[in-house]
Amino acid sequence: MTNERQSTRRHLASDNWAGIHPEVLAAIASVNSGHVPSYGHDPYTAAAKEKLRGHFGESAEIFFVFSGTGANVLSLQTLALPFNAVICADTAHIFTSECGAAEKHVGCKLLAVPSADGKIDRDGITKHLVRFGDDHAVQPSAVSITQATEYGTVYTPDEIQVISGFVHEHGLKLHMDGARLANAAASLGVSLLDASGNAGVDVLSFGGTKNGMIAGEAVIFFDRELAANFAYRRMQAAQLSSKMRFIAAQFDALFTDDLWLRSASHANRMAARLGKGLASLPGCTITQRVEANEVFAIIPREHIAALQSECLFHVWEESISEARFVTSFDTTEADVDEFLAAARRVLGA
Amino acid sequence: MTNERQSTRRHLASDNWAGIHPEVLAAIASVNSGHVPSYGHDPYTAAAKEKLRGHFGESAEIFFVFSGTGANVLSLQTLALPFNAVICADTAHIFTSECGAAEKHVGCKLLAVPSADGKIDRDGITKHLVRFGDDHAVQPSAVSITQATEYGTVYTPDEIQVISGFVHEHGLKLHMDGARLANAAASLGVSLLDASGNAGVDVLSFGGTKNGMIAGEAVIFFDRELAANFAYRRMQAAQLSSKMRFIAAQFDALFTDDLWLRSASHANRMAARLGKGLASLPGCTITQRVEANEVFAIIPREHIAALQSECLFHVWEESISEARFVTSFDTTEADVDEFLAAARRVLGA
Amino acid sequence: MTNERQSTRRHLASDNWAGIHPEVLAAIASVNSGHVPSYGHDPYTAAAKEKLRGHFGESAEIFFVFSGTGANVLSLQTLALPFNAVICADTAHIFTSECGAAEKHVGCKLLAVPSADGKIDRDGITKHLVRFGDDHAVQPSAVSITQATEYGTVYTPDEIQVISGFVHEHGLKLHMDGARLANAAASLGVSLLDASGNAGVDVLSFGGTKNGMIAGEAVIFFDRELAANFAYRRMQAAQLSSKMRFIAAQFDALFTDDLWLRSASHANRMAARLGKGLASLPGCTITQRVEANEVFAIIPREHIAALQSECLFHVWEESISEARFVTSFDTTEADVDEFLAAARRVLGA
Amino acid sequence: MTNERQSTRRHLASDNWAGIHPEVLAAIASVNSGHVPSYGHDPYTAAAKEKLRGHFGESAEIFFVFSGTGANVLSLQTLALPFNAVICADTAHIFTSECGAAEKHVGCKLLAVPSADGKIDRDGITKHLVRFGDDHAVQPSAVSITQATEYGTVYTPDEIQVISGFVHEHGLKLHMDGARLANAAASLGVSLLDASGNAGVDVLSFGGTKNGMIAGEAVIFFDRELAANFAYRRMQAAQLSSKMRFIAAQFDALFTDDLWLRSASHANRMAARLGKGLASLPGCTITQRVEANEVFAIIPREHIAALQSECLFHVWEESISEARFVTSFDTTEADVDEFLAAARRVLGA
Repeated sequence: MTNERQSTRRHLASDNWAGIHPEVLAAIASVNSGHVPSYGHDPYTAAAKEKLRGHFGESAEIFFVFSGTGANVLSLQTLALPFNAVICADTAHIFTSECGAAEKHVGCKLLAVPSADGKIDRDGITKHLVRFGDDHAVQPSAVSITQATEYGTVYTPDEIQVISGFVHEHGLKLHMDGARLANAAASLGVSLLDASGNAGVDVLSFGGTKNGMIAGEAVIFFDRELAANFAYRRMQAAQLSSKMRFIAAQFDALFTDDLWLRSASHANRMAARLGKGLASLPGCTITQRVEANEVFAIIPREHIAALQSECLFHVWEESISEARFVTSFDTTEADVDEFLAAARRVLGA
Repeated sequence: MTNERQSTRRHLASDNWAGIHPEVLAAIASVNSGHVPSYGHDPYTAAAKEKLRGHFGESAEIFFVFSGTGANVLSLQTLALPFNAVICADTAHIFTSECGAAEKHVGCKLLAVPSADGKIDRDGITKHLVRFGDDHAVQPSAVSITQATEYGTVYTPDEIQVISGFVHEHGLKLHMDGARLANAAASLGVSLLDASGNAGVDVLSFGGTKNGMIAGEAVIFFDRELAANFAYRRMQAAQLSSKMRFIAAQFDALFTDDLWLRSASHANRMAARLGKGLASLPGCTITQRVEANEVFAIIPREHIAALQSECLFHVWEESISEARFVTSFDTTEADVDEFLAAARRVLGA
Repeated sequence: MTNERQSTRRHLASDNWAGIHPEVLAAIASVNSGHVPSYGHDPYTAAAKEKLRGHFGESAEIFFVFSGTGANVLSLQTLALPFNAVICADTAHIFTSECGAAEKHVGCKLLAVPSADGKIDRDGITKHLVRFGDDHAVQPSAVSITQATEYGTVYTPDEIQVISGFVHEHGLKLHMDGARLANAAASLGVSLLDASGNAGVDVLSFGGTKNGMIAGEAVIFFDRELAANFAYRRMQAAQLSSKMRFIAAQFDALFTDDLWLRSASHANRMAARLGKGLASLPGCTITQRVEANEVFAIIPREHIAALQSECLFHVWEESISEARFVTSFDTTEADVDEFLAAARRVLGA
Repeated sequence: MTNERQSTRRHLASDNWAGIHPEVLAAIASVNSGHVPSYGHDPYTAAAKEKLRGHFGESAEIFFVFSGTGANVLSLQTLALPFNAVICADTAHIFTSECGAAEKHVGCKLLAVPSADGKIDRDGITKHLVRFGDDHAVQPSAVSITQATEYGTVYTPDEIQVISGFVHEHGLKLHMDGARLANAAASLGVSLLDASGNAGVDVLSFGGTKNGMIAGEAVIFFDRELAANFAYRRMQAAQLSSKMRFIAAQFDALFTDDLWLRSASHANRMAARLGKGLASLPGCTITQRVEANEVFAIIPREHIAALQSECLFHVWEESISEARFVTSFDTTEADVDEFLAAARRVLGA
C-alpha cells in the first residue's frame, strides 16, 4: 500500500487500534512453510494448546476462534438454552456492544445488573435469582463477568471466588469475558489461572487481539464437560479458522518469554502514567480506578476537540464529558508524556 | 516454534493446507505501523475496497469477513427470512460442510438439487419452485451456486446467465459461493466480474483464504439494496474484525499485480498436469472435468495408503475409492511430477 | 368429569381463571356441523374477519392465532430483524412473562423502560433512541405498549398518538399488546379502533382469551404492508389452527351484540367496585389507578392468607405486600361484596 | 352465524375439515363453571393427565399443547441442539408441511430419507449415520417417524422396535409424530402404548385434533429425562394454553368410554370401505395400502373435477393424477356409498 496512507502515529483510542506485536508477526512468518492439515489438525495448534495448558491448567479444554464476540457467544451457547437467562453487568460488552449477538446465537435473554464501575457482585446478581420453576420466566443459568472490565477495573481473585461460590451454589455457571484478562492478571500480579479458573470461572473467553495479535481468541473450559460439543458449535458459528496454524502461532508467541505479560504490564504502566498525569490537570477528574490499561476521565468539554487533534480518544459519556483512554503494548512513555504536555498547554495548567 | 514441527512438505489435500503467499504476508507487515481506527474505519480498508470495486464494479458494496462460512451465512441472511428456502446443489458446501450453519443463522430450510458434478441447472431448480403461496411450505427466495464447484467444475458465464435469468424471473435472488471464484475466472479466462456479477449474481461470497490469504473473505453485493443492514448482521454474527486493516492489506496484495490471477492460474495448471498424469495410470479414472484446481479420480483401493504415504490427499467417496486432489498457489511442478512418479511406481505402470 | 372436581367458585386471581362466556360456547356449537376447509379457508373465518374489519377498519389485515404470546412474537417478527431492538416497559408481558419468547423467536433484544404504572412515554423511549448507525449496537425498530397495561392502567388515545407520532418520526413502528384492549376501550368509552389503530398503532395483538373465549387472539395490521408474509410466519410458529372455524366462531360471538363491550365493561365495573371497597379498609392502599379490570393494593401482610382462603388472588410484589386482583366477565357483584365483607371482618374494620 | 353459511355436507378432504365430536363438545361445556387456576395448574388437567397415564404408562410425562406442529417442534427441541440433525422420511409432515418450523425452532437440519409409502427403515436411516465426530457435518441425534404415516400406512410394533433398537444403539433418540396414532393403534388392534412407547419411542406427539377435538395435542415423554425443561420450552414456544382445563377436558372425553378408539376405528372402516369401492372402478388404482383413515388412488384426470363437485378431496400428486381421500369420525357409510355411486356414474362403470 502507498506510503501516504501509512502512519506511525499512535493514539489512545483503543488497544485494537494498535497493530501486531513484532514477535507475533515473526511467529506467523515462522510457521509459513509447507502444508499442514487444516481446521486445527496441525502440529502447531496442538503445540500452542499444550503451551496454554501450561498456564491455564492441564485439564483445561482449549479452542481457538476468530473474535471476542465469537468467543463470547460460543461460551454462552454452552451455558444457556433459549429459555435460560445470562446475568451480566449493564456495562458488559456482551450486553452493550455485540449488536445483540447473545440473543441471536443463544436465543436467551440477558439480565443486566446496574454497575457503576463495570463490576457486579453477589447482591446485584441476587436480584435476578428469582422465579426459578416459574415457566413464564426465563431461568438464569449463568453469570458473565468481564476481567478487566469495560471500565478498566479489575476483580480480585477473592471477589471472583465469592461470585463463583454463590453462582455455583445456585446451580449456575460462571463465564468470564477475558478480552483483557492479560491486563487484569498483570495488574493483580497473579497468574492468568489465578485470575480466572482458579477463582471458579467455568468458561473463559481469553483475548489475544487486544494484546498484540491480528485476530484470535481462545475459549477455555475449566469445566471440561461443557466443552463436549464445542467443535460443532464453533464450526456452525463460522468461528473455525481453516488455516488454524496461524492463530496457533500467534498464541504461541504470546506465551513465549511471557510476551502476554510483558505487553500487558507495559500497557498498564502507560495507563497509570497517563492517569496520574491527567489527574493533576485543572478541570480533569479521573472517574474510574486505573487498574488495567484504561483511563476514564472527565475533561472540560471545550477542550475535547483540541486534545483529540493531538491524539485520538473516545468520548465515552457525552453528558458528563467523560473520555476514555486506552493504552496498548506499543504505547510509549513519550506518547503519554507528549499527550500530557499537550493537555497541559490546552487546559492552561 | 521448534524446527522439528516445521515442515516444508506440500500435499495435495486442500488449498487450505497451504500457508500464506509471501506477497500477502509482506502486505500484512507493510501496514503494521502506528494506530488506525478499528472495525474497518481505517484508510487501508477504504483503499482495499476501492481496489476491489475496480474489479467487481464501481457500484458493488463490499464487506470483509473472517471466513467462508461466515460470508455464506451472512449472504443468505440478506436473501432469506426463516420461512424461506434456499435452493442449492446437494454437493454444496453450505449444504454438506458447514455444520448446519445456514439453518441455524437464517432459520430457513435448504432445498437440495441432486448434482453429479457440483453444478445445478434450470431443471433442477424448477423442481423446487412449487407451492408458492402455500403457507404450509417454505417459500424459495434464493438459489446458491458454487463457483468453482466443490467438484472443481466451473459454470460458464452463459450458464450462470441462464440460471440468474430464470431465478430473477421467479422473484428469487442468486447467491454465489465463490470460495474458489479466482480459480473459476482464471479457468474461464474472464474477469472476476464476468464470472459472477455480470452474469446476474446478486450476492457473492468471494474467497481469499484458499488463494493465499491467512483468513479473509469478502461479501460483495451487486444488488446494493440487499446490503442495507449488512454492517449490523456482520457484527452480530461475530464476523467483524477489529483490526480490519490486516484483512484489507491481504486483499490489497491479492489485487496487486494480479496476484489472485497468478496464483489461481498456477494452481489450475498444476491440477491439469496432475489430472493428465493420473489419467494415464492403470486403474485410475478421472471422475470430474478438471476445470479449476481440483482433480477427482478413482484410485485402486489397495494403493491408496501407499500413495498417501507419498503425499496426503483425501478419499472423497469411499464406496468407489474416489480420491480428491487439490492444488494451490504453492504447488510446484516438481510436487506434481514426484507424486505422479510415485504413483506410477505404486500402481505398477 | 366427576362432580367433585367441578367448582362454581369464582376467584379474583386472573381473568384467565374464568371459563368460556356462554354466548361464545354457543357460537362454537353453532358452527359444529359438516365439513369446512381447514386452516382458515372456511366461510366462518371469512365472515368473522369481515366482522372484525367493521370494528378495526376496512383496510385492516386480520389473522387469528392461538395465544397472546403467539400474537406478540408474531407481531414482533414483522417489526424487527435479529439486529434490531424492541423498546417496551420493564413491566411488559413480553419482557417479564413470556419466558424469553421474543428473544427466541425474533432473535432481537428487548430494551426496557422503567415504568411505575405499566405505561411508558416519549421520555422513556428517547433514552433508547441512541447509537443509530453504530454497528456494535442493536438498532431500535419498534416500540411495544400494552393496553390496558399489566397494572390495569390505560393509555388515552392522545397519549398513544404522542407516542406513535414520535415513534414514526424516528422510523420505528408501534406494536400494541392488546390482551385487554377490550377493557381499555370500555374504560375510555371509545371504539377499539380509537384505542389502537386510529391512535397510530401499526400492529395489534388483540386478545380474546381474557375476555371470555377458550383460546384465540387476533393479530391486526393497520399497516398492511407489514402483513405481507404473516401467513408463513404463523404456520412456522405453530400458531395456525387447523380447525380455524372454531376460533372464528368465538370472535364472531364476541362481536355479536357487542359481547366484547358488555363483558369488558362489566369486568371494569367489578374492579371499580372492588377498588373502592378495598380503599376504605384499614391498612389497605390502592397502588395503581383502577382504570380497567385490575386492582393493585397493599394488604397487611398478616392478613393475606386469611383473605386468600376466602377467594384466591396473587401477591404481586411480596416485598411490599402488594396484591393483584383481576375481575372478569363472570365476576358478580355478590362475589365482590362477599369478598369485601370478608375483608372487613379479617382486617377488623 | 347465519344459516346460509352453515353446512351439513361432509367431505373426504381431511380429518381436520371435520368439526368437534359431540362428546368432546359436551366435555368442554361440562367443565365450564367457576374459576380454576390457569396454565394447567387446575384439577381437570391433573385428572386428564392421570387418565392418559393409564394408557401411556404410569411413568410417562405428559404435556398439552395447541397444535401438532407445536408438539413436533417442541419434541424435537428436546432431542436436538442446533448442530444436530433429525432424520425423517421425505414425506414427513415435519419435512414438507410445517413451513420449516423445525429448522426455525430447533435451528437444526432435517435429513430426509426417500420413502415411497411414508415409512422409513433401518437401511434408509443408516445412510445418514455418517460423519460422526466430523465438525463440518451436522450430527444426527434423533429419528422421527409418523404413525400412521402421511400416506395412511402403519408401522407394526415390530417394525418400530427394529428402528428404535437401531436408533438407540447409535445413541440417537426416537420421536413419533402421532397426529394419527389413534388410527394406527386401531388399525393394528393394539394399545396406544404398544404402538408407540412400548416399541421404543422416546417422545411422542399425540394428536387429538384430527380425532375429534377442536385443538389440542399432547407431548408424551416415555424417556422422562427428556422432559426436564419442557415447561419452559412450551411457554417460550407460545404453546401453553392459559385456560388449559378446556384442552384437558377434550382429552378426558377422548379417553372416556374409549372415544379415541371408537372414532379412529370408525374412520378406518370408512377408509377401507372407500378403498375397496374405488379399487373396483375402471381407471382407478389404489396406490398405498389402506391401513388407517386415508386412501390414495389414481383417478383418471378428466374425471377429477366432476368427482370433486360431488365431494371435496385433494389431488396429492398432480403428475400422476393421484388423489388423497381422508375419512374422519363423522364420515358415514352413506357418505362413502354416495360418493362411490357418483364415482361409478362419472367413471362410467
